[in-house]
Amino acid sequence: MSDAPERNAALLAVDWGTTAFRAWLLDDSGAVTDRVTSADGSLRVSERADSPSERAEVFRDAFVGRCGPWLTANPGVPVLAAGMVGSDHGWAGAGYLDVPADLRELAGRLTVVPAGESVVHLVPGLRVTGPDPDVMRGEEVQLRGVLAATTDHSATVVLPGTHTKWVRLDGGCVTGFTTAMTGELYGLLLRDSTLSRLAARRAGPEITTAFTRGLEAAERQGDERGLGALLFTARTLALAGRLESGEVADYVSGLLVGDEVRHALQGASAGVVTVCGSPSTAPRYRHALERAGVSVRTVEEDVAALGLWRIAQDAGLVPAVSDPRTEDHPR
Amino acid sequence: MSDAPERNAALLAVDWGTTAFRAWLLDDSGAVTDRVTSADGSLRVSERADSPSERAEVFRDAFVGRCGPWLTANPGVPVLAAGMVGSDHGWAGAGYLDVPADLRELAGRLTVVPAGESVVHLVPGLRVTGPDPDVMRGEEVQLRGVLAATTDHSATVVLPGTHTKWVRLDGGCVTGFTTAMTGELYGLLLRDSTLSRLAARRAGPEITTAFTRGLEAAERQGDERGLGALLFTARTLALAGRLESGEVADYVSGLLVGDEVRHALQGASAGVVTVCGSPSTAPRYRHALERAGVSVRTVEEDVAALGLWRIAQDAGLVPAVSDPRTEDHPR
Repeated sequence: MSDAPERNAALLAVDWGTTAFRAWLLDDSGAVTDRVTSADGSLRVSERADSPSERAEVFRDAFVGRCGPWLTANPGVPVLAAGMVGSDHGWAGAGYLDVPADLRELAGRLTVVPAGESVVHLVPGLRVTGPDPDVMRGEEVQLRGVLAATTDHSATVVLPGTHTKWVRLDGGCVTGFTTAMTGELYGLLLRDSTLSRLAARRAGPEITTAFTRGLEAAERQGDERGLGALLFTARTLALAGRLESGEVADYVSGLLVGDEVRHALQGASAGVVTVCGSPSTAPRYRHALERAGVSVRTVEEDVAALGLWRIAQDAGLVPAVSDPRTEDHPR
Repeated sequence: MSDAPERNAALLAVDWGTTAFRAWLLDDSGAVTDRVTSADGSLRVSERADSPSERAEVFRDAFVGRCGPWLTANPGVPVLAAGMVGSDHGWAGAGYLDVPADLRELAGRLTVVPAGESVVHLVPGLRVTGPDPDVMRGEEVQLRGVLAATTDHSATVVLPGTHTKWVRLDGGCVTGFTTAMTGELYGLLLRDSTLSRLAARRAGPEITTAFTRGLEAAERQGDERGLGALLFTARTLALAGRLESGEVADYVSGLLVGDEVRHALQGASAGVVTVCGSPSTAPRYRHALERAGVSVRTVEEDVAALGLWRIAQDAGLVPAVSDPRTEDHPR
C-alpha cells in the first residue's frame, strides 16, 4: 500500500496468441500504465510440457516469469487472458460462444485457472457452427474493444493477420465471420517457393507501386484467373523484366490482399468497413478497400487492451462505467 | 553395324525438366525401344557448376552419364532435348517462339550444343508477350505430341503439374496460355503450414469423397471466398470433427483444383478439353472438368516422346512420315 498519488493497478490484461505474448497493466480508469511483450507464444510454451498434465504448470511458470513483478506489487489484481492460451492445447480449454453471440456475454463464460496466489480468467473464443464452421480465439477481445472505441455497432470488421478474420457485427452481436489464411500464404510463398527465389526482400509497411499493381491485377484478371494463376504472374512479369526483384514481395502481397478483399466484398454489404490491424497490415487493407469504393475506419491493434478492460467490467472484476457518455452498448 | 533384324535407333529424345530427367530411344518407325528416368533435374545439375562457364560441362557430363550406353551403341544418333535444360540456367539458352506460334515451327528454331561425339538439339520454349506475359518450356513438346495423337487441333489443353498450363490451340497453333501454380501451392501447404499439421497423409491417386468435397466447396463458396478463405475451411472442418486427418490432403487438393478449374473455364470456350498429365493428376482435372459439364479427353504424359519424334521429323533429323494417313497436320 502506498499513499503516493498514483492510482492502483486494477487489471492485468493478457493477449496470449500462438506466437506472441502481450500484457498490459491498467489502472482503475482503464488507462494502460505499463506493458510487456514477448515472443513466448502459446505454441512455444506448450512445447515445454512433456505431457498434457504438465501444461498448466508450464503456462503458469511462463506467466509468472513475465508478470511476476506486477503480481508482487499488486497482490490480488484480477487477471484476464485471451487468445490461444484458452485453447485445448493452451493453459486450459476456455470453450467457445456460438455465433450469433453478444460480445457482452463473453464475461459470463470466463474459465478460472489458479496461478499461485492469483487466479487467471480465460476468455472463451467464438465459433460458427453449421455447414461452414469457423473459429476465433483472441480476436473476440479486439472486437469488444472495437465496440468500445466506435459508435457504429453494426458493421463489417476486418482483423488482418496470419489468419485474417472478416466479421459481421449487428448491434454489438457477432452474427457471422470467415477466415482467410492470407498472411500464412504470404509467409509460405516468400519463404521457399518459385516466387521467393525471385524476391530480393520482404514487403515493407509502405504502400508501394508494386503493391498497387498486385491489387490491380487481382481486380482486372480475378474473374479468369484464380489465385494460383494470379500468383504465377509475379514470376512471368519478373522473367519479362517488368517486375524488379525488390518489388516481387509487395506485388505478391497485393495479389493476395486484392483477391481476398474482392471476394469478401461480394459476400458482405458494403458501407463502412472497420480495419483493426498492425501498422504494417492495416494500411494495405485500407488501400485495397478504398480502391473498391468502401469507406474505411481504422482501429489500432492495441484495442485488445480496451476490449479486455470492458470484458473485465462486464464481469464485475473492475469497477463498471458510471458515466453514460462512455457506455458503449446503447440498446 | 549389325545384321540382326532389330531396327536401328533413329532418335534419342530427352525431356529434361527442373526436377526430372526422362529419355527415350526410338527406332525409325518412331516406336520407343528403351527408356531411362532419373531425379537428376536441371536444377540439381546446374547447382554442380561453380560458375556459369562450367554449366555446359556439367550438363554434358550428366547427359553422357545417363545415356552413354545408348550413344556408344548408336554412334551419330540424333539427340533432341526439351525442358528447362534449354533455359538460360540450363545447358544453353534455347530461346522462345512468341505466341501465336505454329508448333511445327519449333523444328526451325533448334539450338545445337556439342556433347562429345554427338550434338544435342535443344527445343525452344513458348512465350506470351504483351501485358500478361507467360512462358513454357517442355510443355511445347507435349503439345506437339497432343497434335499427333488427336485429330481435333482446335481445343483447350490442360497440362497439370507443379505449374499447370492452360493452352488454347487453334489449327495446330498455340494462340495463348496461362499458368497456375496449383501444384506448388499444394506442396507448400502440405509441407509446413497450419493445414499440414492436420493432415495424416498426402493425397493419393484415387478420386476420394474428400477430394470431391473440396471441389464442391470451391464451386459453392468460390464467389464469396477467395482461395485463402476456401483453404482455411480445411482447418475449421477438421476442428469441428467433420474432416478426418486422413482426408485433409485430398480435400485441400479438391479446393485448389476446383478454384483453378472454375476460373479457367470462365476465360475459355467450353467444348472439349484435353487433359495431358500424370496418372495421379490427370484424373483429378478430368473429374473437376466433367463436374462442370465439360467433355474431357485424356492423353498420356508420355506423349512428350511422340512430340519430340514429330519435331525431329519436322526438322529432318529422322525420316518424315510418308503415309498420308498418319499426317497429323492437315491444312
